[in-house]
Amino acid sequence: MAATAAGPVHEALAALGLVDHHCHGVVTTALDRAGFESLLTEGEAWPGSGISPFDSPVGLAVRRHCAPVLDLPRHAPPEDYLARRAELGAREVNRRFLAAAGTAALCVDTGYAPERLTTPAELAGAAGRGTAAYEVVRLESVAEGVAARGVAAGAYAAAVDTAVRQAVARPGVVAVKSVAAYRTGFALDPARPSDAEVTRAAAAWLARGSGGGALPLADPVLVRHLLWTAVDLGLPLQLHTGFGDGDLRLHRADPALLTDWLHLTAGTIPVMLLHCWPYQRQAAYLAAVFEHVYLDVGLALHHVGPYRAGAVLAEALEITPFRKLLYSSDAYGLAEFHHLGAVAFRQGLAEVLRRLLDIDELSLADALRIARWTGRDNALRVYHLPDPAGHAEGLDARGTTPTADLPDERP
Amino acid sequence: MAATAAGPVHEALAALGLVDHHCHGVVTTALDRAGFESLLTEGEAWPGSGISPFDSPVGLAVRRHCAPVLDLPRHAPPEDYLARRAELGAREVNRRFLAAAGTAALCVDTGYAPERLTTPAELAGAAGRGTAAYEVVRLESVAEGVAARGVAAGAYAAAVDTAVRQAVARPGVVAVKSVAAYRTGFALDPARPSDAEVTRAAAAWLARGSGGGALPLADPVLVRHLLWTAVDLGLPLQLHTGFGDGDLRLHRADPALLTDWLHLTAGTIPVMLLHCWPYQRQAAYLAAVFEHVYLDVGLALHHVGPYRAGAVLAEALEITPFRKLLYSSDAYGLAEFHHLGAVAFRQGLAEVLRRLLDIDELSLADALRIARWTGRDNALRVYHLPDPAGHAEGLDARGTTPTADLPDERP
Amino acid sequence: MAATAAGPVHEALAALGLVDHHCHGVVTTALDRAGFESLLTEGEAWPGSGISPFDSPVGLAVRRHCAPVLDLPRHAPPEDYLARRAELGAREVNRRFLAAAGTAALCVDTGYAPERLTTPAELAGAAGRGTAAYEVVRLESVAEGVAARGVAAGAYAAAVDTAVRQAVARPGVVAVKSVAAYRTGFALDPARPSDAEVTRAAAAWLARGSGGGALPLADPVLVRHLLWTAVDLGLPLQLHTGFGDGDLRLHRADPALLTDWLHLTAGTIPVMLLHCWPYQRQAAYLAAVFEHVYLDVGLALHHVGPYRAGAVLAEALEITPFRKLLYSSDAYGLAEFHHLGAVAFRQGLAEVLRRLLDIDELSLADALRIARWTGRDNALRVYHLPDPAGHAEGLDARGTTPTADLPDERP
Repeated sequence: MAATAAGPVHEALAALGLVDHHCHGVVTTALDRAGFESLLTEGEAWPGSGISPFDSPVGLAVRRHCAPVLDLPRHAPPEDYLARRAELGAREVNRRFLAAAGTAALCVDTGYAPERLTTPAELAGAAGRGTAAYEVVRLESVAEGVAARGVAAGAYAAAVDTAVRQAVARPGVVAVKSVAAYRTGFALDPARPSDAEVTRAAAAWLARGSGGGALPLADPVLVRHLLWTAVDLGLPLQLHTGFGDGDLRLHRADPALLTDWLHLTAGTIPVMLLHCWPYQRQAAYLAAVFEHVYLDVGLALHHVGPYRAGAVLAEALEITPFRKLLYSSDAYGLAEFHHLGAVAFRQGLAEVLRRLLDIDELSLADALRIARWTGRDNALRVYHLPDPAGHAEGLDARGTTPTADLPDERP
Repeated sequence: MAATAAGPVHEALAALGLVDHHCHGVVTTALDRAGFESLLTEGEAWPGSGISPFDSPVGLAVRRHCAPVLDLPRHAPPEDYLARRAELGAREVNRRFLAAAGTAALCVDTGYAPERLTTPAELAGAAGRGTAAYEVVRLESVAEGVAARGVAAGAYAAAVDTAVRQAVARPGVVAVKSVAAYRTGFALDPARPSDAEVTRAAAAWLARGSGGGALPLADPVLVRHLLWTAVDLGLPLQLHTGFGDGDLRLHRADPALLTDWLHLTAGTIPVMLLHCWPYQRQAAYLAAVFEHVYLDVGLALHHVGPYRAGAVLAEALEITPFRKLLYSSDAYGLAEFHHLGAVAFRQGLAEVLRRLLDIDELSLADALRIARWTGRDNALRVYHLPDPAGHAEGLDARGTTPTADLPDERP
Repeated sequence: MAATAAGPVHEALAALGLVDHHCHGVVTTALDRAGFESLLTEGEAWPGSGISPFDSPVGLAVRRHCAPVLDLPRHAPPEDYLARRAELGAREVNRRFLAAAGTAALCVDTGYAPERLTTPAELAGAAGRGTAAYEVVRLESVAEGVAARGVAAGAYAAAVDTAVRQAVARPGVVAVKSVAAYRTGFALDPARPSDAEVTRAAAAWLARGSGGGALPLADPVLVRHLLWTAVDLGLPLQLHTGFGDGDLRLHRADPALLTDWLHLTAGTIPVMLLHCWPYQRQAAYLAAVFEHVYLDVGLALHHVGPYRAGAVLAEALEITPFRKLLYSSDAYGLAEFHHLGAVAFRQGLAEVLRRLLDIDELSLADALRIARWTGRDNALRVYHLPDPAGHAEGLDARGTTPTADLPDERP
């Protein structure tokens, strides 16, 4: 894929106001080299090792695609990049990258913030131009909050239910999220646990945490209970799958392991498989055979960089219905990732579609429709978001299934 | 890969009468939109969802490659496509696509037909031009038939053996097939079950089905018993692996899970790994290290479309010996898939070989030989089919191991 | 990737003296067709089957890239190739391929030699031009030697420790290696086994082997014990992962299964994941999140050939930090594989980097640095090898993290 490639699909994707259906806030303080590098990698930074996260595909992508946003030449050295970043200050840096991302709407996971991050409203403010922000509630964080505030085991299920319902009743909440992939992996008993099982598991978990606040929720019964809580709630459920940090057991985050649970939940809530790499083909299979399953390749987009993003998207799109692929950045901490995710998605998808167009495997109208659906409309539809007006000019090719005709999906 | 790419390998593959070593019949009745769409997807159709199977890679491929066969422009809208299809009628539609496929011989799995499908003879008749049809017997269907007709548990093994031998004794039967991937997955005890184990498992299974006809055979012991029945029979055994419909647990259909069983069956029957996607590299490994293992990427070919078929074939061919890859469409229900599978195989393989030729990684004679072997000769050899004369003109480049010198493989 | 592609990265990689951090010796006797073919495949050769290993990707690669080294035309027929090979004699053949490989240093696994192979010194001698040779000690072979010489179960652990320490104290030993992937797979209890567990397991294993010499070490406790022995030793540990011969269960050689053990060993020895295919993305994930994890795609390089080597390397490099990828051939038996591995690595990596350069995703200085690091410097650094002078001309572009500044990694 060529950064310099042009043509109608590249132009349409460049002009499209993306809906980023899963992302996080960014840090608001100045970052020194160690701080920046620790956010640049999904691993830990390895100070003293001589191995810098700049010397990785995402590091190259930052120097190539982010340096110019800070008025530096392409491929600027890390030292220059960090100096310029410090000179501009966090507020200006965040503003530039969020604006450059060209995102029309952001769905922000607020459940993980070991450091101070922007709120959804602050993030949207940095993006400017009328960007809308929505919130995604992380279920494990809610349950851990319930435990931290103190609850009897027998009252745990009801307290979690109440807390989750309160959390999603706040304005702007459009989905919930689970990190079951991290906590237990997906090789779980798929069945809804009984009340007695939940009480028993809660008792054991709460006992372990007593005296020192809540432990991370990693009990298989309680993790399953949260997944089923999401089903009862009726909102789309975002599930981390595949790639992430070193706390994963990657093979247990293969979304194919969810199949039994997906059979049990067919006809209920939309299930949004996040990230998926390197299991994007497995995720695509699930999206092809289950009506309620969707996917994205967020996080991978900026880590593999714009060139390989096209290859990953091409695999994801081998069998995925075009109504089932969404855009997310999964940007966390660094505003750069909001920009890089958008660049990688636009360039990667444009290149996949251009190649198909070049050999006449699809029509231009189809290509433009697929770009608009995956970059924006699929998310508007699944999350029932209002149309972010003014971002869709130039993308009015009509598909076979116009959005306006689509029925409501929420159960 | 370019539909418009030309050159000697494209021309040779275009002229080659393919042997489709695994396919199904097609429906003979008129299809309305719902009926057509339900056959277009490996999932269920999702009426009322607003998500049409036309809006997927296979839908694009139908509009691109099948519309012209029905005298429509490329990329015709679904409505036009379905109207023209209805106008021509099922008989004419089937005739056109089967003829367009250019298949010299078809091996037809007759064991799954929830709706009325063409027989192998009818399918060959639709293809015309002297196309030969052979039959593949599905083992689970035979066993379920034995149960449905009533059998004592102690007589089950002998009755299945008799029924399978009768089924394969019919003229034109060249192989058996198992859908163990669907019923239990491949993480099975690889050993041949004892008579007592089979009787005990049969008793439990037959008891569950008593009074209401046979249940699907999904008992691990009985599934293993069928695999070993195939070994005793001596015919090639086709195994569904990887991609399929929503009844799969994809990760349990990884053919690598068969390794222990393949060690036990080394030196016996040819084992034909069907489909394999997304585990085509795992299948290639097995074909590279086990003399009796072969593979295809059928089903995936038409679902991913001709462009990505090249990518999937390139992965499958990374280490697969060229005597071990076969062509299959796995077309089911829609005659379109017989055509699309052939188009995707010819274009995908031609593109893979052309790129190697362009950089002089192989000679033209080698490329033509690989095309002829994988598209036709490997199947003729494994299934002992007569040479479908008249389809091989232009492909007489001599390989290092001429077919005529190859000894008989059947044990 | 084009054999004929040129440009500064191709030229730099062509001129770079590679460090092959994992390979084996080559046979020193004449090979007839059966002997050559049995070394050409990771499976068994299948005499009488009519299927020749020449009819596979590695066979094409030998005819294309090795025939000219023996003064034959490209794509020479197997018969001509074998005749010329016999004519030149093993010594001259080995000399030509080792010299053609352009390897500056070789780390030779001496622990597997069912036939007579060159010693590391002989191998370096064949390579000429001051090529250095180092040795890698295979842990299972040492333990099996301890058992073969006779040891009481209670003395097993101490005897193995002593024998391993003696083995690695020999001049030129730079690493140890485990084939746990073959013996048990990686789904092991990650914890260090207790002395009592080791004694109990040793007693059972030694009893099985009594009277007939040592059995292959495949007990899970004893395999774990060897992994932890390596941790105590402090040398880099090479681990076979992924692709290999028919004794594997490929899915149990997925390096992701090592995650729990990698958590326990963080901060200790460098862990070198060898081969990895088809799990190169899983290996890349581990290298990205664990400071002590490195990978290569050796063995796959020559088996998939130079064209697909680029595709495999591109997947491996999607997220791998550039300090974490190394070159290995894993050549065994045939001197051709030393040459083919080097050709495939140089061409594959050059093509990956050229594409990125063409679209300005990285700078030329970055591309040259990545080439030099992965082809040579990363191995020098991990194994503390002296700089093989005279091989690095033309590759003096300065990276962001010059080698000279890197601290010692060995614990």
